[in-house]
Amino acid sequence: MVQNKALKYAAHPSGKPVAGVNLTIETREFDTERPPPPGGITVKVHYVSFDPHQRGRMRSPNPSHTPAFDLGKPVTNSAILRVLKSDNRKFEPGNVIYSFRTSTEEYTAMSKEEAEACEILDNRFNLPASYFLGALGMPGLKAYSSLYAVGKPKAGETIFISAASGAVGQLVRQLAKREGLKVFGSVGSDEKVDMLTTKLGFDGGFNYKRENAHEAVGRLMPEGLDIYYENAIQVGGEQLEAAIEHINDFGRIVGCGAISQYNLPPEKQYGVKNLWQIVQRSVTFQGFIFFNPGFADVYHEKHQRDVQMWLHEGSLKAVEHVTYGIENAAEGLLGMLEGKNVGKPVLQVSELP
Amino acid sequence: MVQNKALKYAAHPSGKPVAGVNLTIETREFDTERPPPPGGITVKVHYVSFDPHQRGRMRSPNPSHTPAFDLGKPVTNSAILRVLKSDNRKFEPGNVIYSFRTSTEEYTAMSKEEAEACEILDNRFNLPASYFLGALGMPGLKAYSSLYAVGKPKAGETIFISAASGAVGQLVRQLAKREGLKVFGSVGSDEKVDMLTTKLGFDGGFNYKRENAHEAVGRLMPEGLDIYYENAIQVGGEQLEAAIEHINDFGRIVGCGAISQYNLPPEKQYGVKNLWQIVQRSVTFQGFIFFNPGFADVYHEKHQRDVQMWLHEGSLKAVEHVTYGIENAAEGLLGMLEGKNVGKPVLQVSELP
Repeated sequence: MVQNKALKYAAHPSGKPVAGVNLTIETREFDTERPPPPGGITVKVHYVSFDPHQRGRMRSPNPSHTPAFDLGKPVTNSAILRVLKSDNRKFEPGNVIYSFRTSTEEYTAMSKEEAEACEILDNRFNLPASYFLGALGMPGLKAYSSLYAVGKPKAGETIFISAASGAVGQLVRQLAKREGLKVFGSVGSDEKVDMLTTKLGFDGGFNYKRENAHEAVGRLMPEGLDIYYENAIQVGGEQLEAAIEHINDFGRIVGCGAISQYNLPPEKQYGVKNLWQIVQRSVTFQGFIFFNPGFADVYHEKHQRDVQMWLHEGSLKAVEHVTYGIENAAEGLLGMLEGKNVGKPVLQVSELP
Repeated sequence: MVQNKALKYAAHPSGKPVAGVNLTIETREFDTERPPPPGGITVKVHYVSFDPHQRGRMRSPNPSHTPAFDLGKPVTNSAILRVLKSDNRKFEPGNVIYSFRTSTEEYTAMSKEEAEACEILDNRFNLPASYFLGALGMPGLKAYSSLYAVGKPKAGETIFISAASGAVGQLVRQLAKREGLKVFGSVGSDEKVDMLTTKLGFDGGFNYKRENAHEAVGRLMPEGLDIYYENAIQVGGEQLEAAIEHINDFGRIVGCGAISQYNLPPEKQYGVKNLWQIVQRSVTFQGFIFFNPGFADVYHEKHQRDVQMWLHEGSLKAVEHVTYGIENAAEGLLGMLEGKNVGKPVLQVSELP
């Protein structure tokens, strides 16, 4: 028997979720000696991903939406696990695996079906396993596939990335730089603006909470922009309008993900007034989600090959924002939703041996 | 010497252009016996197109825009002409030709350069020559190329077309029907709504000036729409918002042309609030203009072959709105800008012999 701490979804939030109220830490016992479920596995959880889409699951169930978290149970997300016991031929003890959906706790038992949805990491360069939640995981593949499938970057062009310091924005920046683009970004604090140019390799950036987006985009990109990577807290807001205002003919707008726009009541939603410029300038604005045909399916292999190699060479950096220990998990997850992270937010439950 | 009446651009409008003030009819003399300019042609003008983009040319010149009409000179547009005299090997008297830009007058002389930009009609089925300004001309190719290049229609889907009774909308409707789609449209009068279903083969329609677009789209298309063909007076307005509200996953929005949105001051422009749904539903919104690569260049031959054949067979109808006589040209052009036409607006200057 071991202590098994978990991040529990304790109560539906009304408004902003609060640590200790909506998300709590609960300690239960876990019998590591007990055999796994038939065909399943027993695992130790090492890294759990924090992702913006988790906000959308903190609410009452609604059949027309993605599933809500189960009240009273651990919050789930993708994770890196190590197999302790296996009743499945696909795995043996010691395997380090990726799970698309695991409970945020220290140990867990997975059914046959859950186990078979996991994959042993193809970590040929022995990179840090947490990278498979970020640059080598879903955010990385999202950035990689959408930049090429929709953004279609060409050397000499300019890209503007909103939420630039996050997991996806970081990678889009580095990929765009490799392709020879000028890269600008928006972030939510002056501190992050400094980081964009001093540490993160952007050609410039602005704080969208302090500076008017129309003015900032005009000031930073006087010759306009060719790609807008919309990755923002508010999809379809002032930054999109500013990007359209300054986009060049044949520009591309990549519409990727969203957090809080979903929660805004209609009267608080921003009205974008200049959509006629999408027509006048022959712009393509394409929204996508990760599982759409033409994205992960097409780019999966190339993404793994390229990004593993570049990380190994050191020509690409995986910037992470690590929360250490499950006791800090609620603050880590909620901090990410408030934009406190720089790079991919990850919970380290325990180090891999 | 003959009398040569012309539609003259007399004064820049402040606000809505007025017949007799901004557009006047002027009679001059024309010497049909005089030789054409060196390498040029002398022609009789038979049909002149009226197109929404002409509104944008009624203003003071501005170097960053498409050219304004020249003050004191005839309004220009595409036209069907008959060659009277030729000093160019490409043409001989009697040829019926298409000109991309001709003065709106009864007779005109064209320079070598202007003449060489003309094409002899390839009218293998002896269709009415005015069709080469509409279903077989630029509006037709615009509809045909954009419906396939951006709309990508599939049998069983639903398309919603704004400005449905105009030159482009009419053809999009017929092409979509051939592909097995349900077709709905919006128009600007109750009279036109009646025509949509009784005469024009739509599955339903509404008057956007009288009914709220959100309600109408929801009522007419309870299972949502797959393609929105934005062809509206106000690109990026309430109808776009309503279409986004009701568009299905992987929907396509074709952004085609614009008239008056260009003229609205920013405070009167409509703010579209639900663009996050473009991301959530993986929608592609693509604006285009006629000359973009991937449209006219790709679809030109197929458009001529198909639409000539279909018109000849009678399986496709070219709906025209004809203004007879150059003395009525100002009212015809301005009426089109106010949406008074049903089908392709054309000025018949004189019948072809």
